[in-house]
Amino acid sequence: MRLSTVRLEDGDRTTTAARQDGDEFVLLPYTDVGALLASGENWQERGAWNGERVPLDKVTLAPVVPHPNKIVCLGLNYATHIREMGRPTPTHPTLFAKFDGSLIGAQDDIRMPPISDDLDWEAELGVVIGRPGRHVPHRRALEHVAGYTVANDVTVRDWQHRTREFLSGKTFEATTPVGPTLVTPDELPPGASGLTISCSVDGHTMQKSNTADLLFDVADIIAYVSTIITLKPGDLILTGTPGGVGAGRDPKVFLQPGQELLTTVEGIGELRNTVVKDSM
Amino acid sequence: MRLSTVRLEDGDRTTTAARQDGDEFVLLPYTDVGALLASGENWQERGAWNGERVPLDKVTLAPVVPHPNKIVCLGLNYATHIREMGRPTPTHPTLFAKFDGSLIGAQDDIRMPPISDDLDWEAELGVVIGRPGRHVPHRRALEHVAGYTVANDVTVRDWQHRTREFLSGKTFEATTPVGPTLVTPDELPPGASGLTISCSVDGHTMQKSNTADLLFDVADIIAYVSTIITLKPGDLILTGTPGGVGAGRDPKVFLQPGQELLTTVEGIGELRNTVVKDSM
Repeated sequence: MRLSTVRLEDGDRTTTAARQDGDEFVLLPYTDVGALLASGENWQERGAWNGERVPLDKVTLAPVVPHPNKIVCLGLNYATHIREMGRPTPTHPTLFAKFDGSLIGAQDDIRMPPISDDLDWEAELGVVIGRPGRHVPHRRALEHVAGYTVANDVTVRDWQHRTREFLSGKTFEATTPVGPTLVTPDELPPGASGLTISCSVDGHTMQKSNTADLLFDVADIIAYVSTIITLKPGDLILTGTPGGVGAGRDPKVFLQPGQELLTTVEGIGELRNTVVKDSM
Repeated sequence: MRLSTVRLEDGDRTTTAARQDGDEFVLLPYTDVGALLASGENWQERGAWNGERVPLDKVTLAPVVPHPNKIVCLGLNYATHIREMGRPTPTHPTLFAKFDGSLIGAQDDIRMPPISDDLDWEAELGVVIGRPGRHVPHRRALEHVAGYTVANDVTVRDWQHRTREFLSGKTFEATTPVGPTLVTPDELPPGASGLTISCSVDGHTMQKSNTADLLFDVADIIAYVSTIITLKPGDLILTGTPGGVGAGRDPKVFLQPGQELLTTVEGIGELRNTVVKDSM
């Protein structure tokens, strides 16, 4: 099953949950995919409901989960990225947060903030939680996954590093595309492992890796985070980015206004976002 | 005006917003103070409504804002704490996040996680946002404050430092008391500056400082954070802690099960929380 959160009319930010069926979306009676997931244990049955159908090209895509209770992000989770950032291999997952105001849809513009020119890409596999859990045992962790999605943890690199905490550079308004759909686990390999993940800027490939190279895999992350706090339906986990970010290149390369960022994860889908310089 | 989020019955986690009036709470038709603040620009009028009254001792206190869209925390924001942590004076605010599952009420137990013995205190002035804003000019920043409260950013110190990001040690379930009330700015000095802030453990004073010693004051923080992302009504900002934390002592001192943590900010109120060892 492939679920999206869609906007029905241009200019109207009202959203609705929808299931992809061929070249149509079937609209579901929930404001977004997060609300469907929060409706209870049997959300898959309700996701399979029939309802009004609209052609795919008659809607725009909102973030798959526009208002997660938590957005948990991993830093330093692919060996290639750890090397390019000059960091030692971590013994524990490096966790940081984003706020939901940073999320955008799969084709929305990325708002480049007026106060920085150091906007960088980070293609990531996204995980959406479907079942609440605390102290989740590793062997049962994948049962808590509602599905997988694509994200780009677009980063304001100079603000990320102006203090020792990443948050400032990671949660700028309207910078993080998430979508286009949530793909349920039955359509993918266990833990969404072994999928090609890539990112290109104006057609030039900048990142190309495989989710099998995650240092801490999806089950590791769910078990670890749930040691700290209760995971809730709709929570979004961004699993970290592979090597090839702009700040890891010599010379460094950053996104420019007008450029198109294409982010893909095999078997899930793609994000296609244009960089637009934001005004004050 | 002094607003709280109260629980009406033992065992029932349903909450309601309430205004303190002498030795009574006046119940307001909102689920919590955050919902009152989100009801629109004239929330102060609605906060002054009359309704059912209950004696103060017939309710328990929930976190003042149980479900903020954002919890933005500052590290390293008092000179005394910067010294004890061995860090240089920062040139920009150090921001990190918490998730709302970490929040507890003013008299709730602090759940000490089973996997750590390094639970530490951090008395803080809390700020609750009342008016949305992005790119808020410094001179208008305090207009966005709904009120001030007391918080203790209780920290699992070893988990805070096991990676370079603070989040893991800062957002353990049910560790961060916030309350007892939101005090509107008219009852306090501008920016809640010049107030004594203190923290004691079983009656022994561990932190005693003054909010005038904040490196980045409330207006600085609001202007800075709103450069990054839109502030929303009910957002909670924890402004950082002064010197005297357990990890800064020689030898280090940490909280033990059964101890009572008392946190006060002059003119606002106090938090009184007992440490209870959590089970798996």
